[in-house]
Amino acid sequence: MAEPVHTHAAILSIGDELVRGQTLDTNSKLLSERLMLAGIEPVEHGTVGDGLVGIVDAFKRLSRRAPLIVATGGLGPTDDDLTREALAGVLGDELVEDAVALGWLTERLRSRGREVSPAQRRQALRPAGAECLRNELGTAPGLSARIDVEGHTADVFCLPGPPGEWVPMWETMIAPRLRPEAGITVRTRFINVVGLPEADAAALVPGIMARDASPQVGITASGGVLTWRIRYRGTLAPAEADRAVEAVARRIYDAMGKHIFGEGEASLASCIVKLLRARGQTLAVVESCTGGMLGHAISAVPGASWVFAGGFMTYSNEFKQRAVDVRAETLRAHGAVSAECAGEMAFGGIAKTGAAWCLAITGVAGPDGGTAAKPVGTVYIALARRDAAAPLGESQNKKFEFPGGREDVRQRSVMSALAMLWFALKAGDPPARLLWEKS
Amino acid sequence: MAEPVHTHAAILSIGDELVRGQTLDTNSKLLSERLMLAGIEPVEHGTVGDGLVGIVDAFKRLSRRAPLIVATGGLGPTDDDLTREALAGVLGDELVEDAVALGWLTERLRSRGREVSPAQRRQALRPAGAECLRNELGTAPGLSARIDVEGHTADVFCLPGPPGEWVPMWETMIAPRLRPEAGITVRTRFINVVGLPEADAAALVPGIMARDASPQVGITASGGVLTWRIRYRGTLAPAEADRAVEAVARRIYDAMGKHIFGEGEASLASCIVKLLRARGQTLAVVESCTGGMLGHAISAVPGASWVFAGGFMTYSNEFKQRAVDVRAETLRAHGAVSAECAGEMAFGGIAKTGAAWCLAITGVAGPDGGTAAKPVGTVYIALARRDAAAPLGESQNKKFEFPGGREDVRQRSVMSALAMLWFALKAGDPPARLLWEKS
Repeated sequence: MAEPVHTHAAILSIGDELVRGQTLDTNSKLLSERLMLAGIEPVEHGTVGDGLVGIVDAFKRLSRRAPLIVATGGLGPTDDDLTREALAGVLGDELVEDAVALGWLTERLRSRGREVSPAQRRQALRPAGAECLRNELGTAPGLSARIDVEGHTADVFCLPGPPGEWVPMWETMIAPRLRPEAGITVRTRFINVVGLPEADAAALVPGIMARDASPQVGITASGGVLTWRIRYRGTLAPAEADRAVEAVARRIYDAMGKHIFGEGEASLASCIVKLLRARGQTLAVVESCTGGMLGHAISAVPGASWVFAGGFMTYSNEFKQRAVDVRAETLRAHGAVSAECAGEMAFGGIAKTGAAWCLAITGVAGPDGGTAAKPVGTVYIALARRDAAAPLGESQNKKFEFPGGREDVRQRSVMSALAMLWFALKAGDPPARLLWEKS
Repeated sequence: MAEPVHTHAAILSIGDELVRGQTLDTNSKLLSERLMLAGIEPVEHGTVGDGLVGIVDAFKRLSRRAPLIVATGGLGPTDDDLTREALAGVLGDELVEDAVALGWLTERLRSRGREVSPAQRRQALRPAGAECLRNELGTAPGLSARIDVEGHTADVFCLPGPPGEWVPMWETMIAPRLRPEAGITVRTRFINVVGLPEADAAALVPGIMARDASPQVGITASGGVLTWRIRYRGTLAPAEADRAVEAVARRIYDAMGKHIFGEGEASLASCIVKLLRARGQTLAVVESCTGGMLGHAISAVPGASWVFAGGFMTYSNEFKQRAVDVRAETLRAHGAVSAECAGEMAFGGIAKTGAAWCLAITGVAGPDGGTAAKPVGTVYIALARRDAAAPLGESQNKKFEFPGGREDVRQRSVMSALAMLWFALKAGDPPARLLWEKS
């Protein structure tokens, strides 16, 4: 068989729980991202159940679609794990026990004080013409084989289902074996933007997303954040490709300005934590309708302890008074869902924690509690600063009307609060208007 | 063409952003769940990019796999939305403008003060032999058609990509048109369990998961919760099928006892909120390493305001003292990650909020901060009760050693805290040992 060039790839997920919708398949996405970074375009994802015939058919079919197939799942010890048998069927091979793989298995189980059961021993089987791939974090080894179906040659890698197991295998064993097209340079860059609707962001950089442009540019919107995706794939030398990508990135940076908070995997919360840490400033939060969700986002960032002064979940009116000294008079006159209450929560949070900044959120997340004047989705967010002597200015106390259900409203509240702090940190003042903000 | 019986189904997701891994496909899972509930078994998920040939091939291929195809995506206004064209190609039809669909579009845009642009107008096109399906929450109508490929007849429903748009369309227009096999009864039941490892749970109900059993039973583990899945599909009359499922459920209930917290979509947090509300009791939280994640889980439950007395995110030692009166001496002698600190946090939370119950979490979530004595994953969780006169008993103050990275440790801490409260509410005492608990 000729050695296939991995110009493009197909991804196969195997498992009844996936095809029946009991479990969400995240492997296909994670594998696609990795293939794209390697310069190999994924052209199809397929998911089939645990039936032998279905898996064999999928391998055969996908070998006609792509010279590289990456499959996950079906390598475990139980009777419905049939990926080994299916690959043997495609190869026309017998299953044989791999002595080295049995050694891995024995060693792994022995370290936990266990013996290899007959079921577990199945995991050391492989098609005679395939190779076992060591799994350092689980009992099921992967498999590697080259298959030929009616003249279509494809390299097949079968990996265990849990990402925690296959991701390390990918880095050490699969990535080095990929053979993307020679002479092709691939560059990918992601630029993250907050505080702009997708259409407005696109309009600020006219023509940049033309279908035939190179590098290719696109936008993805998710959870209140826009990501500009720049991708070059072509015959330019690496340095020229870098320059071409940089030129496009420059246009985006010039147009987006302070709306850009980071690149790649950086979350808005992580960029805020980094910036606060660099300035030696701390942050507190006082959350009503989000009830801990903002603190959750901040404390999710490794190293958050450098900047997270503390927070309050002031779900009830009583606790708003008790915890952060919101005045009974304010609650009587304006209600808990009001700019006045948000402002007192924010300044109260600073008084109680000594933080440099405090974000406060109060609103109607729904499904109940909405009124004509304050419908579900009405949220006030205040940002207070310790050294601000003046009373709260309007720019630091915003009203939003968020669309969507309870979790949408809460999630958008958290993102908008972080955006307010981001713009305050970056520029001293916020942009003209945030998404969903009401005057 | 004969009217196909929808014995099984195939699901197709369309979009470059999906096949390239920029966006996670959740539609396939959501559609599979709905098909399963309707008694129609999904046998394959496929994802292809925005190329016309690829979409046409996918429709043709899947029509040989299943008599029902549900596709999402590719119905928008831009040039790379080609599902309409692909379906026309499979049908051998021209695209025609649907006057009724154009009316929906005009009406929808006019209500937002806009005109129909030429790009948007494409969304009123349909293959001559297809039908437009009204989308009440977006501009792109769905499509319905019956295709015949080499004698294989299949019903095809094409829906817009956003779940917020297609889910209501599913309920009103797709579900009523499904034709599952006649004389077949389908029953599904999910029973949720906490505080048991999967292997132990399975061992408590021997033989129940036999491959040839009817009803079929399986277990899924996700985020610290096990879900027993009971599924009957067969020729029994509905009442008999109900009895068969109930008999299996009874065995599971008997074996799992108080580990069962609810059925179906019920989360552990929602069952706790319900139980507390029924008893008129309130809950407070004091979170160190989870920094709001527990409050987030509780406040995610609609109606949480009935029971959520309030909470503290006491990330720093200083704020642990200031907010909930943890003693400096305790921090000096035992450190913040200790049973002593957890206990004082829990009782402090009660003192400050007046809640009936308080959960406190303190630990090392990582990636930094671990030591030989307290490695990453070491977490103490205390549960205090207002009317408990006695000092904290061991059963209310537990040490855990959670595996995994920062978010795993935090997520497992939250689930374990909720589990402790669940068992305290249900039985007055916890089970012998929780998952990952250390003596």
